[in-house]
Amino acid sequence: MRHLIDPMDISVEELDKLLMLALDIIDHKDKYSDICKGKKIATLFYEPSTRTRLSFEAAMLELGGSVLGFSSASSSSVSKGESIEDTVRVVGCFADVIAMRHPNEGAPMLASMYSPVPIINAGDGGHNHPTQTLTDLLTIFREKGRLDNLTIGLCGDLKFGRTVHSLVKAMSRYKGIKFVFISPKELKIPSYILQEVLDPAGIPYEEVTSLEDNISKLDILYMTRVQRERFFNEADYVRLKDTYILDKAKLSDAKPDMTILHPLPRVNEIATNVDDDPRAAYFRQVMNGKYVRMALILKLLELV
Amino acid sequence: MRHLIDPMDISVEELDKLLMLALDIIDHKDKYSDICKGKKIATLFYEPSTRTRLSFEAAMLELGGSVLGFSSASSSSVSKGESIEDTVRVVGCFADVIAMRHPNEGAPMLASMYSPVPIINAGDGGHNHPTQTLTDLLTIFREKGRLDNLTIGLCGDLKFGRTVHSLVKAMSRYKGIKFVFISPKELKIPSYILQEVLDPAGIPYEEVTSLEDNISKLDILYMTRVQRERFFNEADYVRLKDTYILDKAKLSDAKPDMTILHPLPRVNEIATNVDDDPRAAYFRQVMNGKYVRMALILKLLELV
Amino acid sequence: MRHLIDPMDISVEELDKLLMLALDIIDHKDKYSDICKGKKIATLFYEPSTRTRLSFEAAMLELGGSVLGFSSASSSSVSKGESIEDTVRVVGCFADVIAMRHPNEGAPMLASMYSPVPIINAGDGGHNHPTQTLTDLLTIFREKGRLDNLTIGLCGDLKFGRTVHSLVKAMSRYKGIKFVFISPKELKIPSYILQEVLDPAGIPYEEVTSLEDNISKLDILYMTRVQRERFFNEADYVRLKDTYILDKAKLSDAKPDMTILHPLPRVNEIATNVDDDPRAAYFRQVMNGKYVRMALILKLLELV
Repeated sequence: MRHLIDPMDISVEELDKLLMLALDIIDHKDKYSDICKGKKIATLFYEPSTRTRLSFEAAMLELGGSVLGFSSASSSSVSKGESIEDTVRVVGCFADVIAMRHPNEGAPMLASMYSPVPIINAGDGGHNHPTQTLTDLLTIFREKGRLDNLTIGLCGDLKFGRTVHSLVKAMSRYKGIKFVFISPKELKIPSYILQEVLDPAGIPYEEVTSLEDNISKLDILYMTRVQRERFFNEADYVRLKDTYILDKAKLSDAKPDMTILHPLPRVNEIATNVDDDPRAAYFRQVMNGKYVRMALILKLLELV
Repeated sequence: MRHLIDPMDISVEELDKLLMLALDIIDHKDKYSDICKGKKIATLFYEPSTRTRLSFEAAMLELGGSVLGFSSASSSSVSKGESIEDTVRVVGCFADVIAMRHPNEGAPMLASMYSPVPIINAGDGGHNHPTQTLTDLLTIFREKGRLDNLTIGLCGDLKFGRTVHSLVKAMSRYKGIKFVFISPKELKIPSYILQEVLDPAGIPYEEVTSLEDNISKLDILYMTRVQRERFFNEADYVRLKDTYILDKAKLSDAKPDMTILHPLPRVNEIATNVDDDPRAAYFRQVMNGKYVRMALILKLLELV
Repeated sequence: MRHLIDPMDISVEELDKLLMLALDIIDHKDKYSDICKGKKIATLFYEPSTRTRLSFEAAMLELGGSVLGFSSASSSSVSKGESIEDTVRVVGCFADVIAMRHPNEGAPMLASMYSPVPIINAGDGGHNHPTQTLTDLLTIFREKGRLDNLTIGLCGDLKFGRTVHSLVKAMSRYKGIKFVFISPKELKIPSYILQEVLDPAGIPYEEVTSLEDNISKLDILYMTRVQRERFFNEADYVRLKDTYILDKAKLSDAKPDMTILHPLPRVNEIATNVDDDPRAAYFRQVMNGKYVRMALILKLLELV
């Protein structure tokens, strides 16, 4: 039995197959619309994440399966003191696969050691969020037609943004990748990623502070939200949150086929007048998130 | 693509068709039981409204479709600061139609300007609640066999009660309608409805304070809840809430075929010993609410 | 129309049939996988109980039906002051059967007097929880092959534990049953159960304080959680909660085929190193809970 806890659990070969499966689902929806009949996903969301939860639920429903679970700790009885281990053994009697969101790092990993059914990490604290990474990869592939030979800019909160860290690790496995890390110095990408992931693999990167000066060289621009909850004080948050906003003006220097990604929700990192630009791929990214979760569910349930 | 934001969005002709469709659904349930297979409704309830939410969910399930969403802002991640515009663009990737309840007036209208799928206003603050109006109209039609030539009494909170305002506007489009507005002077129907809706159309109405003295002339008695949350202070609420209670005694003067409606929930505006009276139509009204939502979903999804 | 409010509502003969139906469901899942197509269960949980709610939902989904409802009072609009009577009349328009969990004793009974559809009591305060009793009985039957001629130990909180009281009453109807009540003196089984249930029926029992000294004579050991919310002060809770913990050492004196049950959630009443012992039946008990609820839903909907 397989789980998905860390984005790096999936080899490049497996990832290729998963993305191909997602593409096949997109092209032949009818073929898959009943494949999970009689199967159930449990969405155990110990903290609310409406977007991610609904994406999992929509994915299962579009495969013909059904859904149960809870959307926040307050509407569940987890306060009764039950361990994660017991909870997944119980829920494993009710569902065929579990998507777990938890504020504590490592909770889904612990769950996977006891669960009778596959566990999907739907985000654990500031740690991993592997289905977001799968979403990003499918979107890059669909927008650019390839996962190699790309110059990828990542902009905003590169320190706390787990989706950034996972995407850098995942893309590091492909040839011809260059990274441009664009952030204020307070929110720079952690040095362990440079020293342990990029340097050993000989992957070129730059650390810069200006989005405007660097946008023209990018094939992909991955914008991130500056999350209030990651800051220790309000003053730092207010000072930095508007620093790296993408708008029409900055976009005029970008390549005509640059792809703009954002894991959402956005607050104001991307001006809304960018939304109609054909390069804005962040709402297509949401749709891809559903499709790649459909592929993942099928793989973990061994239905393909 | 059509949305339903304001009850008056629907013309009399469209309304007739919608009510006929609801009647056909009631008579031929099996014909419609799989028509929404593979379709999903998202119930985005930014404030709880169990009755309305379950009515939408039951409607979609009885059409063979499925359901996802959230039942209160606290169990969703809307606190992350995402705009309504972005939320509906995201949820539009997961569902085929969205029913939105929101404490802020205008939120569903705003949503409809950006949504890739039809939006149904499931109540926005004290503003509109169009599916309640559809429910009322279907119930009047089923109980009386017509929508014209009726004397309609509306009783209780006519100032804040949005269902009353919408029903008055909707019924004003039919011939031979008379209104009797029964309320304390603090909760009278807003003058704009009299001056802008009824007077120009030459529709007769009375404003009275006694339910007892006026009940005998009514074909329809629409009771309303005096909602605590609409009052500025507790004393006013306590003084007024019990003023207009319908009981067996008052009912003895009513026509033998008068129809009693109430949008529910009731607190004590209707004594429970009225429930068994054949004129009490408020639980049948609930059932009609489900059927008219089924018809509406089919129309908006263009499946009929 | 039948409801299930109190475990003793079901006669021994009906119970036998229900358990046989559950066994048939276990053996022939496919035969039942579409039997509730078009049917809906409403889970009205006025207090959270994730395990019970998900068990009902999984049961209905595995019968091919669907689910709606709410998981806590805070995400529902019950605060608007609607009575239980009105709520079930409304929800009875949306669902074919209702599972109700309520903090107040008697709420499901009241509901059943007004509901147009069958009501299942999913736990009312410290009162009844009949589907847990059905779960326990199916598990005993599957583990031991019989419901008679058993020595049953009940350990822990026998005073407040409603599942214990219901199980004692239910098992008292079979021949050759002996009870061993193992608890601190503060948490002894209520005397009315001894005097009104066991004594009149001539059923032998012992009241003891040591688990270790009595485990060897048991065919069934039913462990219970010492629930914090049942105590009047924290000191009593802390002193007593760890008193009766089952671990590998104590288990060495038990019969090789003793069955260990627990209604879950456990906190630490059973050491986790007991989980792999073949006598530990509490996770199988969860699975049986789903199956017996499937059987119950079929019976109440008169589909078998």
